[in-house]
Amino acid sequence: SINSERLWRRLMAMAEIGATPGGGSHRLTLTDEDEAGRQLFLGWCAERGYDVQYDQVGNIFVRRAGGNNNTQPLAIGSHLDTQPRGGRFDGILGVLAALEVLETLDDNEIETDMPVDIVVWTNEEGSRFQPAMMGSGVHCGVHSLEMVRSTLDDKGLSVGAELDRFGYSQGLVPGARAIGQYLELHIEQGPVLEDSGTVIGAVKGGQAIRWYELSLQGQETHAGPVPMAQRRDPMPALARVIDLVYQVGLQDEAARSTIGVLTARPGSINVMPGRIDLTVDLRHPLETRLKEMDAAFQAGLDDLQAAERKIAISLEEIWHSPVVLFDHALTEAVRQSATGRGLPVQDVISGAGHDAFHMARAVPSALVFVPCRDGLSHNEAEYTSPEHAAAGANVLLDVALRVACA
Amino acid sequence: SINSERLWRRLMAMAEIGATPGGGSHRLTLTDEDEAGRQLFLGWCAERGYDVQYDQVGNIFVRRAGGNNNTQPLAIGSHLDTQPRGGRFDGILGVLAALEVLETLDDNEIETDMPVDIVVWTNEEGSRFQPAMMGSGVHCGVHSLEMVRSTLDDKGLSVGAELDRFGYSQGLVPGARAIGQYLELHIEQGPVLEDSGTVIGAVKGGQAIRWYELSLQGQETHAGPVPMAQRRDPMPALARVIDLVYQVGLQDEAARSTIGVLTARPGSINVMPGRIDLTVDLRHPLETRLKEMDAAFQAGLDDLQAAERKIAISLEEIWHSPVVLFDHALTEAVRQSATGRGLPVQDVISGAGHDAFHMARAVPSALVFVPCRDGLSHNEAEYTSPEHAAAGANVLLDVALRVACA
Ligand SMILES: NC(=O)NCCC(=O)O
Ligand SMILES: NC(=O)NCCC(=O)O
Repeated sequence: SINSERLWRRLMAMAEIGATPGGGSHRLTLTDEDEAGRQLFLGWCAERGYDVQYDQVGNIFVRRAGGNNNTQPLAIGSHLDTQPRGGRFDGILGVLAALEVLETLDDNEIETDMPVDIVVWTNEEGSRFQPAMMGSGVHCGVHSLEMVRSTLDDKGLSVGAELDRFGYSQGLVPGARAIGQYLELHIEQGPVLEDSGTVIGAVKGGQAIRWYELSLQGQETHAGPVPMAQRRDPMPALARVIDLVYQVGLQDEAARSTIGVLTARPGSINVMPGRIDLTVDLRHPLETRLKEMDAAFQAGLDDLQAAERKIAISLEEIWHSPVVLFDHALTEAVRQSATGRGLPVQDVISGAGHDAFHMARAVPSALVFVPCRDGLSHNEAEYTSPEHAAAGANVLLDVALRVACA
Repeated sequence: SINSERLWRRLMAMAEIGATPGGGSHRLTLTDEDEAGRQLFLGWCAERGYDVQYDQVGNIFVRRAGGNNNTQPLAIGSHLDTQPRGGRFDGILGVLAALEVLETLDDNEIETDMPVDIVVWTNEEGSRFQPAMMGSGVHCGVHSLEMVRSTLDDKGLSVGAELDRFGYSQGLVPGARAIGQYLELHIEQGPVLEDSGTVIGAVKGGQAIRWYELSLQGQETHAGPVPMAQRRDPMPALARVIDLVYQVGLQDEAARSTIGVLTARPGSINVMPGRIDLTVDLRHPLETRLKEMDAAFQAGLDDLQAAERKIAISLEEIWHSPVVLFDHALTEAVRQSATGRGLPVQDVISGAGHDAFHMARAVPSALVFVPCRDGLSHNEAEYTSPEHAAAGANVLLDVALRVACA
């Protein structure tokens, strides 16, 4: 079994970097805090003498050699970046549990046949730079390095400039590092496991996601002198957009809709805003239903534009992550490993996107969930217990032993 | 007459400081840009050798001595700070036209009986720090210096720290500088004068204003895994708040309502926001009607809170500027001066707040408007023609000659 106390101590040490007053962490991707978190992790890897490489999008690969290093490795990974004022476990648990697997193999002097790698993917969160799951997407050839390098944050800084700043641009060509099979442990980020008293979720698949940027353009003017009828104020239309987005998200119980970013510009108390920018996140476990939600959303916006001639509505879809299915055999290994340890296990669907989504389309992959309190994530109060964290890491260990020992 | 070419040249020179790509100016109060604008103005004053003093809230007083310096001065003033991406004329015209009056008296070797002062008031705009008309409010004893010093901007910087930084805290005690009568020229910031082809507005009074800060508090969580029914999402309630604010502002044609600042926190595309902060600006020319709007707004929010138990709605009124009336005799002098120069003049009500509102409650005061293109203000495209700018300054000159020469 993995060292539960060591895993918890490291989770808490990592959480100190970018610690927030409310008990969370703030390490947006490719910032100084994110880099400090990576260095803390690499320090622990260096104590064991593992070989470390990185690629040009900042993905980090840590290797524990196997008996037969000509076979493609089993990679276990996740991410160290967080949301703004995010939680201490989202991503971090997956990386530090992978380190536990490697160290537990060391501690027990177990030689695997194939090498076992840890992967730390860049920008899983997609908060500072869109889309999410960026590093794994580039590794898998879903996004080009050039495209993601030119992506800007809201201050106009590019992914490329940040990769250069931290020296990642000197790394391997993305994708050069081969992976044979992929495993990821993550907190569920939803309430299903907790509600049913289950400890391990065997993730059968992930729901489809679409992201949009929407802007409502009017003409800014003074809040006092101009009669209401003469204004080109985008604010009343925003109320209609909000209603539309939630109507689309309430069409059936499995659907989700969220407006996450919302800003009125220029943002002054006595200026009627000339422009409102917002983002929309639509999800559904069925690809066809998400397509219908997208169509209803776009039709609703067209109707609104026809009714509101004084403002200009513009919509851009910036990301589509299709429905994904995980490998049957590897997921069955997850179920058996949980059962072998007497841990209650259940099949679930992932509501969040994960790096494992990209990997699952390339190589046999499995995703393992553990519960988090109140289903809360992307929140400073995000919490998973030391027992659940250890249970997830032990399932990773057992699956790794099944897969990596010839 | 004033020197129209000099006035225009200086307006354009001032606009260079904090110039924005869209042709406006960005000089938020008590920033380096604001201070640079003040120094440019003071340089012009120094060429004439006028005496300059300032007070502890950063108001600047420039004196052209009169024959009888024991009488209280006629002060002519406005402000040099702007909105974010604001216009080139809002406030600036009033200050530079006042300088034209003093210099034209010099150029024509006219000795007035009473001294004639220029006043530059601090933070008229109220965008970076609330409330607006701050410097004139402190001068008139409406706000205490302690209260305004502790006011914070959205980065947590205080008015007090900024006043210390620029050395204003070494100045006179606010209010120590006596003013006998007050005159202000401003662009209308609305469409009335342009629509009627009038050049001069004789402002009879100003409408009442109320400002509020409102927050909708839920609990932030991930946009994907949590079922809609289990969320505490403030966004749908925002749609109801917007509808309410606009319903209140559309009760009669004279009413105004504006949501100027609107931010979802933490502001990440895949985080359901835990909190939405917004500001509300309500106005009406009749004090009793604004009181009714306030009551309808608060009752509507109470109903919304009763219906939306999962979120917490909090409202704070942060400013109330009552209806104001200007001095009959001085305003009549404005009408006669305009007529004397053959300029079409009409009585108007001010939709915007002005430093003259505070002064009007303390000493005889008048406010003069000139048209601005399309009624547009608090916008980079704000524009008033050289002819209209000069017409307004000439009216100031004529009123000053009537008032200040015994
Ligand atoms: N796990 C996670 O929070 N991923 C970010 C991508 C998403 O929005 O689902
Ligand atoms: N003139 C002007 O824009 N004043 C700011 C105060 C207000 O919001 O009316």
